[in-house]
Amino acid sequence: MAAQPVDVGQYAEGVLAGSRAWIARAITLVESRRADHRAVAQDLLVELLPHSGKARRVGITGVPGAGKSTFIDTLGSSLTAAGHQVAVLAVDPSSTRSGGSILGDKTRMARLAVDPKAFVRPSPTAGTLGGVAKATRETIVVMEAAGYDVVLVETVGVGQSEVTVADMVDTFLLLTLARTGDQLQGIKKGVLELADVIAVNKADGPHEREAKKASRELAGALRLLRMADSGWDPPVLTCSALENTGVDDVWAKIVQHRDQLSESGALDAQRRKQLLGWTWSMVRDQLLQDLADHPKVRELGPELDRQVAEGTLTPSLAAQRILAAFRS
Amino acid sequence: MAAQPVDVGQYAEGVLAGSRAWIARAITLVESRRADHRAVAQDLLVELLPHSGKARRVGITGVPGAGKSTFIDTLGSSLTAAGHQVAVLAVDPSSTRSGGSILGDKTRMARLAVDPKAFVRPSPTAGTLGGVAKATRETIVVMEAAGYDVVLVETVGVGQSEVTVADMVDTFLLLTLARTGDQLQGIKKGVLELADVIAVNKADGPHEREAKKASRELAGALRLLRMADSGWDPPVLTCSALENTGVDDVWAKIVQHRDQLSESGALDAQRRKQLLGWTWSMVRDQLLQDLADHPKVRELGPELDRQVAEGTLTPSLAAQRILAAFRS
Repeated sequence: MAAQPVDVGQYAEGVLAGSRAWIARAITLVESRRADHRAVAQDLLVELLPHSGKARRVGITGVPGAGKSTFIDTLGSSLTAAGHQVAVLAVDPSSTRSGGSILGDKTRMARLAVDPKAFVRPSPTAGTLGGVAKATRETIVVMEAAGYDVVLVETVGVGQSEVTVADMVDTFLLLTLARTGDQLQGIKKGVLELADVIAVNKADGPHEREAKKASRELAGALRLLRMADSGWDPPVLTCSALENTGVDDVWAKIVQHRDQLSESGALDAQRRKQLLGWTWSMVRDQLLQDLADHPKVRELGPELDRQVAEGTLTPSLAAQRILAAFRS
Repeated sequence: MAAQPVDVGQYAEGVLAGSRAWIARAITLVESRRADHRAVAQDLLVELLPHSGKARRVGITGVPGAGKSTFIDTLGSSLTAAGHQVAVLAVDPSSTRSGGSILGDKTRMARLAVDPKAFVRPSPTAGTLGGVAKATRETIVVMEAAGYDVVLVETVGVGQSEVTVADMVDTFLLLTLARTGDQLQGIKKGVLELADVIAVNKADGPHEREAKKASRELAGALRLLRMADSGWDPPVLTCSALENTGVDDVWAKIVQHRDQLSESGALDAQRRKQLLGWTWSMVRDQLLQDLADHPKVRELGPELDRQVAEGTLTPSLAAQRILAAFRS
């Protein structure tokens, strides 16, 4: 592969034809950190862009244990049964995929992994959240060009990954759990405000009652705080991914949210905003990376930090010196 | 003033002696955007830094109408009566002070404005939030060096100003109001999570009952969501700044929060983190300003944005071209 030049046209044709082998190759190209691959990947994406944009893009978050994999397996299977083509991507900057195996995801999503109408791809391991997010955003283009009309992007909720995923989807689903006592489990600070739809999962057997109670209380709290700033009040539902109860209702709310966005014209605006936000955040990230990597900044930084922390240097002066070092 | 060189030693001496005239001059210097003033201001701050850091720094937010001015007037007056020296600063990037008059603030805080143990300073009008925040942070140093042991920083809640203020204080107070129906008024998205203490104001006369009900419900919602990620669960109180009931209890919670931070050693860590965060955010802001001001970026930016929004150019390629233009 290293010696042979990559034929962009062939890749594009294969992806547009929906070939799983070409989709996999295209994603590998998009995820690659080799400079020559990156250049070709961009050419490929430019070819694919006009064919992308038609999927419902849904982000799904929840702490480990909230049942995300089972939920996606159940939801994805009923979507493919209803005729949809479902792509499952993941943003997990902490993932350490060994040798490109997706065995982990195959085990986690037993039905979808062997479903010919589904394509499950584990998180890229590009290291930084920015790198992982870039690869995932570009993979969405590949999947949409290949005809997948539902894209589910899962995130495990490390660092800022929920914000990042919320910024690449149309609708953001938060899966949570009831817990004994008067608390909800698995809601990270700041995540509730990103959610368009909230589902209390594992509402089955002995837990059903507490899940329903938790969902009522959460709905009450949301109404009280009224955190939504749009015309959409995030609904709170209960479901059991294990028993496949309520999952269809959660999907119906996701569809309703997306339809409302679409009909009001807000979807186009949101996607344009996401594209521009992504562009400029890559510019900013690279600039800040240049700053962090600059030899003089690396040399001076720790000493200036020490003086500022000690109170012998003002932050303004320290900032001026860092900038002077960077510009030198 | 323009022709005469500024004597930093005289300024420092005046501020350290607690002279109101010298404090006012020092703040004017700190707020100035003239390059020569800025250089002198930094020299002055380096002189004052060793004498700063001893105040309780409290941020206060709430939408217009929440009663911030009355609350600060009432709280500040009882603090000065108890022997404290109270500085009241403001971060309001939307303020348009006419000719440097602080008449607005004098009217808003009738008692504090004439209290010899209080110093009320309206928001600097440096334009950007970054500029306003920088001036206010540096004014805190001036006020502390002058012997003020309580610094109240008010913000009206425009854009990101609450986050900015939360990043310069030890304790952040959110003032809110009950509203008929089952909602709380005046809680902006994201602000609840910054709050260390929450007070439902205007709990007086016919509103007392609904204020108490709102505070119980808010406390319940917070318990449910458990948004705190530290050892401190933000208490929810009621008060009437107008009738001066409950304001002392709010202050007692602020003191308790600060004491807990101080005793656990978290206060020092938080302040160091704030100083370093401030330093590097100034560096980043300046870099991004350089980017925005770069002639080639200004020339290319809109066209690249258009192509990205239209879907004819990938964000990655657009970002590469913007960076190439900036580096050229």
